Amino acid sequence: MNTGPVAAYARLVARATRIATIGEAAAMLGWDAAAMMPAGGGAARGDQMAVLAGLAHGLATEAQVADDLAEAEAAALTDSWAAANLRLMRHAHTRATAIPPDLVEAQARANSACEKIWREARKASDFAMVRPHLAEVIRLVREQAAALSPRLGLSPLDALMDGYQRGITAADVAPVFAAYETFLADALPRAEDIQARRGTPLRPTGPFPEAKQEALCRRLSARAGLEPEHARLDRSTHPFCGGIPADVRITTRYDEADFAQSLLGVMHETGHALYERGLPAAHARQPVGEAAGMAAHESQSLIIEMQACRSDPYLSWLGPQLLETFGGDPAAYAPENLARLWRRIARGYIRVDADEMTYPAHVILRFRLEGALVSGDLAVADLPGAWNDGLHALLGITPPDDARGCLQDIHWYDGAVGYFPSYTLGAMAAAQLMNAARRAIPTMDTALAQGDLAPLLGWLRTHVHAKGSLLGFNDLLAAATGKPLDPADFQAHLTARYLS
Amino acid sequence: MNTGPVAAYARLVARATRIATIGEAAAMLGWDAAAMMPAGGGAARGDQMAVLAGLAHGLATEAQVADDLAEAEAAALTDSWAAANLRLMRHAHTRATAIPPDLVEAQARANSACEKIWREARKASDFAMVRPHLAEVIRLVREQAAALSPRLGLSPLDALMDGYQRGITAADVAPVFAAYETFLADALPRAEDIQARRGTPLRPTGPFPEAKQEALCRRLSARAGLEPEHARLDRSTHPFCGGIPADVRITTRYDEADFAQSLLGVMHETGHALYERGLPAAHARQPVGEAAGMAAHESQSLIIEMQACRSDPYLSWLGPQLLETFGGDPAAYAPENLARLWRRIARGYIRVDADEMTYPAHVILRFRLEGALVSGDLAVADLPGAWNDGLHALLGITPPDDARGCLQDIHWYDGAVGYFPSYTLGAMAAAQLMNAARRAIPTMDTALAQGDLAPLLGWLRTHVHAKGSLLGFNDLLAAATGKPLDPADFQAHLTARYLS
Repeated sequence: MNTGPVAAYARLVARATRIATIGEAAAMLGWDAAAMMPAGGGAARGDQMAVLAGLAHGLATEAQVADDLAEAEAAALTDSWAAANLRLMRHAHTRATAIPPDLVEAQARANSACEKIWREARKASDFAMVRPHLAEVIRLVREQAAALSPRLGLSPLDALMDGYQRGITAADVAPVFAAYETFLADALPRAEDIQARRGTPLRPTGPFPEAKQEALCRRLSARAGLEPEHARLDRSTHPFCGGIPADVRITTRYDEADFAQSLLGVMHETGHALYERGLPAAHARQPVGEAAGMAAHESQSLIIEMQACRSDPYLSWLGPQLLETFGGDPAAYAPENLARLWRRIARGYIRVDADEMTYPAHVILRFRLEGALVSGDLAVADLPGAWNDGLHALLGITPPDDARGCLQDIHWYDGAVGYFPSYTLGAMAAAQLMNAARRAIPTMDTALAQGDLAPLLGWLRTHVHAKGSLLGFNDLLAAATGKPLDPADFQAHLTARYLS
Repeated sequence: MNTGPVAAYARLVARATRIATIGEAAAMLGWDAAAMMPAGGGAARGDQMAVLAGLAHGLATEAQVADDLAEAEAAALTDSWAAANLRLMRHAHTRATAIPPDLVEAQARANSACEKIWREARKASDFAMVRPHLAEVIRLVREQAAALSPRLGLSPLDALMDGYQRGITAADVAPVFAAYETFLADALPRAEDIQARRGTPLRPTGPFPEAKQEALCRRLSARAGLEPEHARLDRSTHPFCGGIPADVRITTRYDEADFAQSLLGVMHETGHALYERGLPAAHARQPVGEAAGMAAHESQSLIIEMQACRSDPYLSWLGPQLLETFGGDPAAYAPENLARLWRRIARGYIRVDADEMTYPAHVILRFRLEGALVSGDLAVADLPGAWNDGLHALLGITPPDDARGCLQDIHWYDGAVGYFPSYTLGAMAAAQLMNAARRAIPTMDTALAQGDLAPLLGWLRTHVHAKGSLLGFNDLLAAATGKPLDPADFQAHLTARYLS
């Protein structure tokens, strides 16, 4: 074997390529399982995914990796991309080797069992049914956090959060969320008053045939910049963006009574897909060539869906397109009406149905509860009560049952603890990025008023997509907007949209 | 590590499971590439397939395998399935280790390059364009055959044929084909005379909307026994059956001017799919649990398509279904008319368009030519002339150009030499199996006349599908029908169908 840091780094790059390529195969199979696979293929697919995950994990943790990392790190890499890549390789290796194989296996088993029972428990709105399984999942998550914590030099909760968005800690998030809670307490009732005075918007009357919705979704997604020769649009129960940068697979679901769900959902997933498409090809299949984390990813879906497509100028272009596609009462498609319809604030129980102003309250609730679960301050048995109290404190409403309370999200039941902040960090980053893009592109609204997202996309490609994981979340924002995450931009966005 | 033959065999079984599971992932990705993938995903998909193939090959050729095989073989396995499985493992290991890695790589490169240029050459009907590439492919195939031959104790051509249908040699095939040539020389002109006297059948007039064709295909495939919860039907340029036993994926293409292509094509692929579905679950992911070879596989597609679905009783049921689905002139859907339309004999240039009587002539031509290419008796430069002379000798017609001659099939250009006999061995086996099934099931025609394939399928499951690779091709036929492959059954079938 060749010696020296250059050869060691080259071996690490080759290994990362191999691991990422296995990951690509798994990504395509994951898409297939959600969008294509007949039910009878499920058991075999589980085996296929497990074997691929095992092969990738084996390659990532071979003894040679530690030797190569140490050798490569002995010399300073002058190229900033290579240096960042090596740091990310070290980070991934630390995470992959910190958890004993027994724990990995126990978590996979416990998460899978709990998730299955959660589906039944949610249907029956019966928390007791899943409580012991969730307790086991949380017990193992705490073990996982305890194993990661010293290796990463992070608190247990931060070590979990690091798995979804590197470089963001609970200490970063807590004051941002506290400030938002204060903002919301004042802003929400005022926004509700203003909304009430404006009266109820008209609802376009359907049915809206699926085929027409699908054709429109394809057209709008392509017009937003997603090239059909590198993407597919299909259906799945839970819409998502999967696949790989060269071949992104987005999904949606259609409701013939309401086209808004598919249309806005597809634009959301298109935002995710455009991020994947814009990742730096020169660093493909390397850690530094990947998206910068889940909060960064959510910022890209929300800047397209919430900032661009729900803006007044875009709606002024979209309204006539909708009228031409679906026909019906022109007043229902008037931009002003669409704005009231699709920017409607409502205190609700369900996170995924929430508007952009109350959505962070749902995230804040979960962030605090998962922190307490990880620290041990909150017992799983006390979760339903804590949930209901917490939602009441934030939004003044109390879920009528656990299906609309602590049973609604899959995340914890599937072992994903520390993920939730990404949604709101992404929403805040989207507002901050949109402000910066507007400053850089004086013609932004003129373009949006023609349904043209190209100027925005061009800016995002340069300032976000092409950076891959070269920078951490806050450094990426600072380079793009002049400052690290600043919740003021999001609050200003909400103030302009809902309080004026 | 545990010692002793039992432990060694258990390790081999675990390894085979792992290799097969990687193969399943590759099978799904192969289906996706043909049926779903946008063009832009092609390069990345090639990498994914290569990495999976490399991982599987690595597992199959690790030093431990040879040790485990030797250890397991030292004790006689009393279970016949395990004994067969071990023999097949040894066989696969011999094949996998016989070819030097350099040659494997050179073949992959040469085949891929040649296949790409062949697509252009076929379009341009320009053999000279692809000749040097084909020469290189054949040169490497001869090297491959030379490497396999001594290890397998087979002639070079037989070593290649063994890769597609174990246990069948050129010495088995040659007399069968010679006899068929004699039969055809007499039967074909007589069948043509009879056909001419019966007059031209009516053609149902379209258009036949794709959606209607697709719904009908799904219904007929399900009625033939393919469970929708374990199968998908999609579209691809070249119809095929892919996927895995628990999740088979069949494809077709639709022509709105003619529904016969999709309908009969889907029944053909359904036959393949039913075979996969019926493989012994207890031996899944083991060599002995796999289909018995390409000729065996083709027998299962052809027994459904040619023997069952083009039979008089099935057509008597199908005609009214078609009339109800598509409407139009009832006379065109009369069973007797459908029989003349879908059992029409014609001397043609193109193998894949050939009827069941002339199809073997196309295969015989290719079998003889590939034998001469492998032995060195025929130079690649002389292929077009030899092809045209050969087709003229067999069918009395000469291709007007190489696109309709030696450029029509992908096989050789992609490095697949020794495959062609499987088509005709499968057709002959299908006739022989149908005869045996008819003897066992006196109510066969009554069932077929109700569109009911269940009795036939039940018999095939017991006598073919459930056997996996426990028996070789001829032993499988002997156990199911009382004799090894006997071309008399196929000739009798053709005589009954076309000469009476």
